[in-house]
Amino acid sequence: MHNSTSSSSLGPGGLDLSQVFFKSISNTHPPSPTKRHTKISVIGVGNVGMAIAQTILTQDLVDELALVDAKPDKLRGEMLDLQHAAAFLPRTKIVASVDYSVTSGSDLCIVTAGARQNPGESRLNLLQRNLTMYKGIVPELVKYSPECILLIVSNPVDVLTYVAWKLSGFPANRVIGSGTNLDSSRFRFLIADHLDVNAQDVQAYIVGEHGDSSVALWSSISVGGVPVLSFLERQQIAFEKETLEKIHKQVVESAYEVISLKGYTSWAIGYSVANLARSIIRDQRRIHPVSVLAKGFYGIDGGDVFLSLPAQLGRSGVLGVTNVHLTDEEIQQLRNSAKTILDVQNQLGI
Amino acid sequence: MHNSTSSSSLGPGGLDLSQVFFKSISNTHPPSPTKRHTKISVIGVGNVGMAIAQTILTQDLVDELALVDAKPDKLRGEMLDLQHAAAFLPRTKIVASVDYSVTSGSDLCIVTAGARQNPGESRLNLLQRNLTMYKGIVPELVKYSPECILLIVSNPVDVLTYVAWKLSGFPANRVIGSGTNLDSSRFRFLIADHLDVNAQDVQAYIVGEHGDSSVALWSSISVGGVPVLSFLERQQIAFEKETLEKIHKQVVESAYEVISLKGYTSWAIGYSVANLARSIIRDQRRIHPVSVLAKGFYGIDGGDVFLSLPAQLGRSGVLGVTNVHLTDEEIQQLRNSAKTILDVQNQLGI
Amino acid sequence: MHNSTSSSSLGPGGLDLSQVFFKSISNTHPPSPTKRHTKISVIGVGNVGMAIAQTILTQDLVDELALVDAKPDKLRGEMLDLQHAAAFLPRTKIVASVDYSVTSGSDLCIVTAGARQNPGESRLNLLQRNLTMYKGIVPELVKYSPECILLIVSNPVDVLTYVAWKLSGFPANRVIGSGTNLDSSRFRFLIADHLDVNAQDVQAYIVGEHGDSSVALWSSISVGGVPVLSFLERQQIAFEKETLEKIHKQVVESAYEVISLKGYTSWAIGYSVANLARSIIRDQRRIHPVSVLAKGFYGIDGGDVFLSLPAQLGRSGVLGVTNVHLTDEEIQQLRNSAKTILDVQNQLGI
Amino acid sequence: MHNSTSSSSLGPGGLDLSQVFFKSISNTHPPSPTKRHTKISVIGVGNVGMAIAQTILTQDLVDELALVDAKPDKLRGEMLDLQHAAAFLPRTKIVASVDYSVTSGSDLCIVTAGARQNPGESRLNLLQRNLTMYKGIVPELVKYSPECILLIVSNPVDVLTYVAWKLSGFPANRVIGSGTNLDSSRFRFLIADHLDVNAQDVQAYIVGEHGDSSVALWSSISVGGVPVLSFLERQQIAFEKETLEKIHKQVVESAYEVISLKGYTSWAIGYSVANLARSIIRDQRRIHPVSVLAKGFYGIDGGDVFLSLPAQLGRSGVLGVTNVHLTDEEIQQLRNSAKTILDVQNQLGI
Repeated sequence: MHNSTSSSSLGPGGLDLSQVFFKSISNTHPPSPTKRHTKISVIGVGNVGMAIAQTILTQDLVDELALVDAKPDKLRGEMLDLQHAAAFLPRTKIVASVDYSVTSGSDLCIVTAGARQNPGESRLNLLQRNLTMYKGIVPELVKYSPECILLIVSNPVDVLTYVAWKLSGFPANRVIGSGTNLDSSRFRFLIADHLDVNAQDVQAYIVGEHGDSSVALWSSISVGGVPVLSFLERQQIAFEKETLEKIHKQVVESAYEVISLKGYTSWAIGYSVANLARSIIRDQRRIHPVSVLAKGFYGIDGGDVFLSLPAQLGRSGVLGVTNVHLTDEEIQQLRNSAKTILDVQNQLGI
Repeated sequence: MHNSTSSSSLGPGGLDLSQVFFKSISNTHPPSPTKRHTKISVIGVGNVGMAIAQTILTQDLVDELALVDAKPDKLRGEMLDLQHAAAFLPRTKIVASVDYSVTSGSDLCIVTAGARQNPGESRLNLLQRNLTMYKGIVPELVKYSPECILLIVSNPVDVLTYVAWKLSGFPANRVIGSGTNLDSSRFRFLIADHLDVNAQDVQAYIVGEHGDSSVALWSSISVGGVPVLSFLERQQIAFEKETLEKIHKQVVESAYEVISLKGYTSWAIGYSVANLARSIIRDQRRIHPVSVLAKGFYGIDGGDVFLSLPAQLGRSGVLGVTNVHLTDEEIQQLRNSAKTILDVQNQLGI
Repeated sequence: MHNSTSSSSLGPGGLDLSQVFFKSISNTHPPSPTKRHTKISVIGVGNVGMAIAQTILTQDLVDELALVDAKPDKLRGEMLDLQHAAAFLPRTKIVASVDYSVTSGSDLCIVTAGARQNPGESRLNLLQRNLTMYKGIVPELVKYSPECILLIVSNPVDVLTYVAWKLSGFPANRVIGSGTNLDSSRFRFLIADHLDVNAQDVQAYIVGEHGDSSVALWSSISVGGVPVLSFLERQQIAFEKETLEKIHKQVVESAYEVISLKGYTSWAIGYSVANLARSIIRDQRRIHPVSVLAKGFYGIDGGDVFLSLPAQLGRSGVLGVTNVHLTDEEIQQLRNSAKTILDVQNQLGI
Repeated sequence: MHNSTSSSSLGPGGLDLSQVFFKSISNTHPPSPTKRHTKISVIGVGNVGMAIAQTILTQDLVDELALVDAKPDKLRGEMLDLQHAAAFLPRTKIVASVDYSVTSGSDLCIVTAGARQNPGESRLNLLQRNLTMYKGIVPELVKYSPECILLIVSNPVDVLTYVAWKLSGFPANRVIGSGTNLDSSRFRFLIADHLDVNAQDVQAYIVGEHGDSSVALWSSISVGGVPVLSFLERQQIAFEKETLEKIHKQVVESAYEVISLKGYTSWAIGYSVANLARSIIRDQRRIHPVSVLAKGFYGIDGGDVFLSLPAQLGRSGVLGVTNVHLTDEEIQQLRNSAKTILDVQNQLGI
């Protein structure tokens, strides 16, 4: 973590002690410029950005972590607080600056920055301000890391992922929104909690908009490989539609509930996005419900729209979308979800 | 994470689906009551408490994590936020309540709760209020977990560790303060940053009071097994006393700096305390500078006082104190540090 | 790793240096006898036993690892080889002895010991010799760890799990065979390799006997939550039965192939069993296809028989069997598998 | 793990199911050729090579692991055995071939291949055969990975590291021998075992030749930052030179002991080399005693010689050698160690 922000000075008179403490062996050549390390940048060091940054650090995902924010004090405070833990963690270089040059050469840029809603402000007005903010962020990221993957977390995530795609000029496989990855995790937790199983044994997807129009794929729920709905049918256990809708409603309301209780969400979104970062950076080819360019899937048309579908992620970003079967009703809900997002985009005039 | 706080209900009419989904094998006996799992409780879910709780969760240290706080909404919000990450983590049961019965059977109780300084309030008055708060916390923890280890994090940590020891009636090996474990980590980071080495290869201790009277053990600093001061001497690199004092000052001011920049400290103390928890719960027998009953060490007398010394930690708490050599000056500083703490204790009248 | 097998002596004249190097704090009480640590014993230190032991050690699952084998030299060599890595691993106490008292107080005992087939020896004769061997092993384990879980790995695993259950007098939830857990992993790898996905996203079970009569549950295969067979049906991609049988055949032959190529199997069974150990010791409640007492499931009767079914594992052993739907053909195959195992048991006369 | 060695075929008529199961999103671009992944190759799949490969796999260090050996059956058996564990591990591509083209683009190549001593064969003759073997290996590795780091494990490791350096034409910072890294670990274990501390808290180096002439740096031993020898002096605990020599002898004999007991060493060297690989691949800048070009250090002259010194390792290989203080006696021993190695090199005529 040898970095310019540190003011430590063990050596008298500016002497560089590392030159005294270590001696080079003979026949040493400088490292080849093709030796590159892995790097993630996190834009925005609020509760969400920092929970993501800290979880990435704990998981030892990259060689370098860069933080950017508009507030220099908060930024330096968070950088120092992470650096002070160096003795408890594998070594990661941590840098921070209000200047985007610090993000140079990132493999992945995670954008969590977003405007806060003012009292009485309309949702559209808020979004307009976020759009302005993104116009300041995305071109800078593209300039310093032209080969990076963009992972958008700011809300409304689907529209802003579209915005980031347009502003970046990147191919769509390199622009991803965190989408319903966390909603799906909450869904899996609720099911696991009820059945008293490990949530990692539960497969279940929420797709579509990350928001009120999201779609629960009931037919896709399985526990330990056992499809739950068809299991219940065979056991002749009647399931009323209301029950299912109640669970979905609970998932949708989870974020609101946490926000009303503690003021914001942080830990779960931190783990969720760090999990996506891992699949991308370590080329894990795992399937996650994330916001991708959905045009052409399930008859979605009417314009370029990003919404969550189960997508396979790896070092090149989105590798493909899983060809999951949806019922007619689910398809209709998904199209409605797409329309909801497109309406906002059209209002925004982008 | 099957817990009473969850309101999910997949089954119609209160049907317990886990009874349908799983069938018992014949010849099944209930688990023996001697089969116990590991459990940590964290008291206080502010920024420090939650950074600790989240890091413990990430490291998969225990089977159960209990959170206690006086504010039910904040508490439930934090519990839900952690639970929602279930799909990304090994399974840990997470429970939370304003009632201490939720901590029952803990192996380790970590107390981060503390009063906040009111404008114009004297330090002593604040401490008096913390004392009152501890009188409500410690006996409850002892009641529900009579065999636990108490790990105190609230400040002023040395005095409050003494308070917890007195209130608990525990033997001193089961009452530990986080002390200068984090100060030492900051010290190691500053040295590692300057030499561009991995902080894990730096050995260096800050001992004594966690505060302004802390003592930097210069003679104990080594990097990769090389004692730094004697190395510099042999290289005839002069070290002025001021330089050393400047570094120590920087460590002492680190906490104030982070607080002034971001408003509080969280990540580093979170990693630091989770690291102590690991050594205790997993019986690692590692050596950490933590606050222990120091009477009789280095001529410290005048009363029971807790301050940080390099102590070996394991499943029974403090296994012993490392017999590290101090210079006469360091011993004098340590005694001054002890006196500073004792003075506060005497003022407090405990 | 302070253990009696070590002959190191730093101190002159038998002086115990740890008494000099560390000093006790005052008011120290000895640890409570109720403070117990976690312990796994591995019986048999051949290629399989050691791959299991090493993987358990790497995963930092327990506080103590005990090894038992009839060959004292090999045993001590393996213990030392693991101990020499202490500087690279979290601290685990490693002990080894030909005497079973070293296993005392284990939470989990993993039996890998087994006789080797002599040239020309009938399978039944070999099994008879294994039975004799188990009569020497199981009562000893029960004597020293009456509350442990028994995890049987020696082959033929289903019959020997039954043997261990009878010899132990344990309730059936505390006797588990590694069964088709590894076969299922191979099945998942073959599917993942073909689809170029992460094997952790593939759900697929092989159940029944760990051997030639094992049953592939085709209808249970899903990838990222998408049931593969019904997906292919909807895509009108015809699947010939032969194709499916070919894949199953490949799984069954995998073990034989590895044995014929390298002489034995080790790594995959090591990871597989360490994975089961994790679910049990850390109470993960995950679902694994393992050998359990199957009487009464899917119409299996005719006697007490152990074979693999998807079972939920936790600290009490088998928590339940997943109520997975089987086709009529799969049920018939499973019953045949049960009959194959029962025939052997009957021949064995137990 | 989609690889050419697998013969699985789920799709009828050679249909590539991954094209059916996943659909590309529109506006997808192929990955940039500058997106490279991390890769380690292990040459030689005997007990040592496989313990290294498996530990690297478990630690999730790289995106791709390549194995090379002259015996195709053994090689394929080991590859399959690792691949079958895919469901229990993060995804790593595992490839294997007798052809070195499989190592193409490696960041690190670890050479464990070595000839076995024939009965009655002189040490020099054996080394001559190893030299011939290395002439077949090193140029191939250089051809396919011209920017890689070479990590030599075969014995005699110091001479063969020199051989690899000469054959490769690489700068010396990119050629490293595993040297006394494992000897030092054994030294740390013996000390930790005696003091009943965690071996990770013990700092202690064996340097010089990996063999009978190795040098124990007594003055460098510290436990939890406390220098042991000066501590004992202050405690007036007399240490006889014989005692120290006995411990060193025990370390030197450890390898012979394990070999005589179990026939070979594997686990400790596996962890040891995986630990070096981690420092290199993840640019950890940690200090390890490894074999480096030692000309000019401590008055070593008389020719280019590789022997172990505490060196800082990172992504560019050897970053520097720690300027550790040696006593005159230790310097003399180190020079003798250098001479021993040089004598062998001269006999070999390279």
